[in-house]
Amino acid sequence: MEKHYADDSFGLHTDLYQINMTETYWRDGIHNRRSVFEIYFRKLPFGNGYAVFAGLEKIIQYLQSFRFTESDIAYLREELEYEEEFLDYLSKLRFTGNLRSMQEGELAFSNEPLIRVEAPLAEAQLIETALLNIVNYQTLIATKACRMKQVAGNGALMEFGTRRAHEFDAAIWGTRAAFIGGFAATSNVRAGKKFGIPVTGTHAHALVQAYRDEYKAFCEYAASHRKCVFLVDTYDTLKSGVPNAIRVAKEFGDKIEFVGIRLDSGDMAYLSKEARKMLDAAGFPQAKIIASSDLDEYTIMNLQAQGAKIDMWGVGTKLITAFEQPALGAVYKLVSIEGEKGEMLDTIKLSSNPEKISTPGLKRVYRIINKVNGHSEGDYIALEHEEPQHEERLRMFHPVHTFISKFVTDFEARELQHDIFQNGKLVYTLPDIRDIQAYAAGNLGLLWEEYKRTMNPEEYPVDLSQACWDNKMQHIQRVREEAARTSQ
Amino acid sequence: MEKHYADDSFGLHTDLYQINMTETYWRDGIHNRRSVFEIYFRKLPFGNGYAVFAGLEKIIQYLQSFRFTESDIAYLREELEYEEEFLDYLSKLRFTGNLRSMQEGELAFSNEPLIRVEAPLAEAQLIETALLNIVNYQTLIATKACRMKQVAGNGALMEFGTRRAHEFDAAIWGTRAAFIGGFAATSNVRAGKKFGIPVTGTHAHALVQAYRDEYKAFCEYAASHRKCVFLVDTYDTLKSGVPNAIRVAKEFGDKIEFVGIRLDSGDMAYLSKEARKMLDAAGFPQAKIIASSDLDEYTIMNLQAQGAKIDMWGVGTKLITAFEQPALGAVYKLVSIEGEKGEMLDTIKLSSNPEKISTPGLKRVYRIINKVNGHSEGDYIALEHEEPQHEERLRMFHPVHTFISKFVTDFEARELQHDIFQNGKLVYTLPDIRDIQAYAAGNLGLLWEEYKRTMNPEEYPVDLSQACWDNKMQHIQRVREEAARTSQ
Repeated sequence: MEKHYADDSFGLHTDLYQINMTETYWRDGIHNRRSVFEIYFRKLPFGNGYAVFAGLEKIIQYLQSFRFTESDIAYLREELEYEEEFLDYLSKLRFTGNLRSMQEGELAFSNEPLIRVEAPLAEAQLIETALLNIVNYQTLIATKACRMKQVAGNGALMEFGTRRAHEFDAAIWGTRAAFIGGFAATSNVRAGKKFGIPVTGTHAHALVQAYRDEYKAFCEYAASHRKCVFLVDTYDTLKSGVPNAIRVAKEFGDKIEFVGIRLDSGDMAYLSKEARKMLDAAGFPQAKIIASSDLDEYTIMNLQAQGAKIDMWGVGTKLITAFEQPALGAVYKLVSIEGEKGEMLDTIKLSSNPEKISTPGLKRVYRIINKVNGHSEGDYIALEHEEPQHEERLRMFHPVHTFISKFVTDFEARELQHDIFQNGKLVYTLPDIRDIQAYAAGNLGLLWEEYKRTMNPEEYPVDLSQACWDNKMQHIQRVREEAARTSQ
Repeated sequence: MEKHYADDSFGLHTDLYQINMTETYWRDGIHNRRSVFEIYFRKLPFGNGYAVFAGLEKIIQYLQSFRFTESDIAYLREELEYEEEFLDYLSKLRFTGNLRSMQEGELAFSNEPLIRVEAPLAEAQLIETALLNIVNYQTLIATKACRMKQVAGNGALMEFGTRRAHEFDAAIWGTRAAFIGGFAATSNVRAGKKFGIPVTGTHAHALVQAYRDEYKAFCEYAASHRKCVFLVDTYDTLKSGVPNAIRVAKEFGDKIEFVGIRLDSGDMAYLSKEARKMLDAAGFPQAKIIASSDLDEYTIMNLQAQGAKIDMWGVGTKLITAFEQPALGAVYKLVSIEGEKGEMLDTIKLSSNPEKISTPGLKRVYRIINKVNGHSEGDYIALEHEEPQHEERLRMFHPVHTFISKFVTDFEARELQHDIFQNGKLVYTLPDIRDIQAYAAGNLGLLWEEYKRTMNPEEYPVDLSQACWDNKMQHIQRVREEAARTSQ
């Protein structure tokens, strides 16, 4: 390819097959048929008991700006040789559909729709890849961050991972997701500017190396900044770093606020205890000890179990890459489509793996909250026309082991999805990022402790209504019969 | 934060501490002292025997556009309360330094400098975070891709991972890195447009679901596209998918090019063998079988070992997230800095972990190629003034177990870093992406097979020159003595 095309839109931030399928729909004249797609994941990440939904802000930006620019069309014409009439159609496309979504900070579970797109078939198809790209990453990181927050408790968590993030976007959207999950601040200044997240950080080893003298480096930092955290492990934490930090804190006295020290290597349990003694003995009991060195929820728990004297945690690689499991497998499945006569026809995807069979139909998802104890009894997926919120007594049964069931009374059925776009128009106002963080934290209060523990949580129930279940069974039967006819 | 700031630059795509350190340097008047930083990693990813360096194109773009915009300055003033004089200094900053780097597609090993930045201290400090963010991710993915390519051999690899990538940038820069590592194509159309990578893809399950009839869906796809790959697992691969693909291929005959079928779930070994028989029996021995389902180098090897009949591989999650190990730990260390009298002073970072001790001084890195057999004897790190290329007989010794050494004669010492920026000016022309891919593949020819095997490769030697080693030892001694004085 000789030409260079401007990277001036996200229209082509999609898989090629979406465009090829769109071309088929368009040639066959079904591109404007109403279609309904759902986004859901089949398995919670990290063995966690819940996920924290995130990604809506970016989705809104993406859909509002969704179009194929002149350079997109030129590329499709010149390099991929699509025909002019089809390109003309693409160039006029905008997102004109409806989108319903969970709010950011909502708790989400396996096999329930996070997002529902109702749109002309072509539009819904073309946006799939970008929506999954956004939701999969941001929800993964918000969930990982929330796990760490549950362990860290009152110890503030700071996101320090930009250098290990998967390129620029992950650094800033990942740290936003971390904030939603409960992190207090980020080191990434651009994320602070873009999202209003608090930013934090003092100095690195380079400062000490640049002065080639730790004491001198700390002095110069103190001379130019009121709030000081000294990084104490450039040469030797206990022999050099902590003594120099104390010396400078004493010499500068009221001229600085000696916030504390940061440990970045070595035996954190031992070093933090020794450093705590040294700081206390020197008259700085209020000085904080900040740890940063490949931390995650497991190392934080382990350090706590060892009685480490750590007040704040700087977390990098393990959070921003979701190192333990760096992908969430959310998918985007067609559940209903307009037929020739304008009627809606439900659709299904079978699989030799039973958990991979999709659930057909236009649906809504409810959180069933017990009014007596304020805890959630589970989530309940019903067909569009059903009104579980008006039922006196709700039967909830396990979607795999259907003989396991329970009746719930005196409950609130809270709908989890909200209208975000209607006929292509944004009808939702994103809350302030602090409110999203508070919303996530508040939602955790609805869950019994058994669903929230870091390891081996109980499985939270996500059940289908009887009508939704019956509909699914009918479609499995229909498709199986058709396949049997084909193979004869 | 009430205000909204435009996200119009990457100036603030850095850690806050870089700006705070810059402020210290600036107040102390040492911000323009010449400094030398090196980027290197300590451990190869995936237990691989080498890494494939990538990231230079993005680094060039970043450095050429490096500046703090008005909105950056406004944010720093209004939210972080930096002083006006310092902000005025920042607003005028551009990258004016030198950057030497390996070329993309170069093979890189542990503890050798990939990139060397020589610049005024403040500039070199401010760009650290972004450079690491770029190099760590792109090198990781190029390396993972190359591992897969070594296993796949002549079977083409296609990158399908956008939906699982860590946000948008990772999707496109990751697929570019995959191409460098040996992938043949990507599904991401924007990456195709931006980088000139071949794009590929036909249809998804949604097409079959939209028509609610697999045969009809394949017909409509064939009616609108000449090259057809039919996805055959929406309902039942062998009972429905493959028979329908064959039926449509027969019915359309010469009107389409029946490229083949794609398997996306189930027992790939069994299904591919059965599908191969069905295709052959139907008169389509040339039809390819493409597999895509959570593949990586291990599953590809395993399928090959089972005699699976797979011609092409679509790889998603496991590549684009480097699922097995989603972070490379490259660091950025100060190795030399200008002193008060204009002299260069080497610097070191100690650690209780001996492998984490940095190597001081301005250095160059050479690949020592044996002229007799054409293979590389190892890499050789020398101080700037040394000229190993003019030596008759080179002594190479292990940088940890120094008693292990060898003498090399009749060799070429090929410098691995090239001038990219000089005094802030770009002096390097990026090769075409296809040439970068070919360069990487050619470099592998220099390595003995023992360094290239997928599991448990031999450790490739990266050795220090005697002068470089002696210099490091002196600095360790110097710093230890200073630390001992502090603790007295």
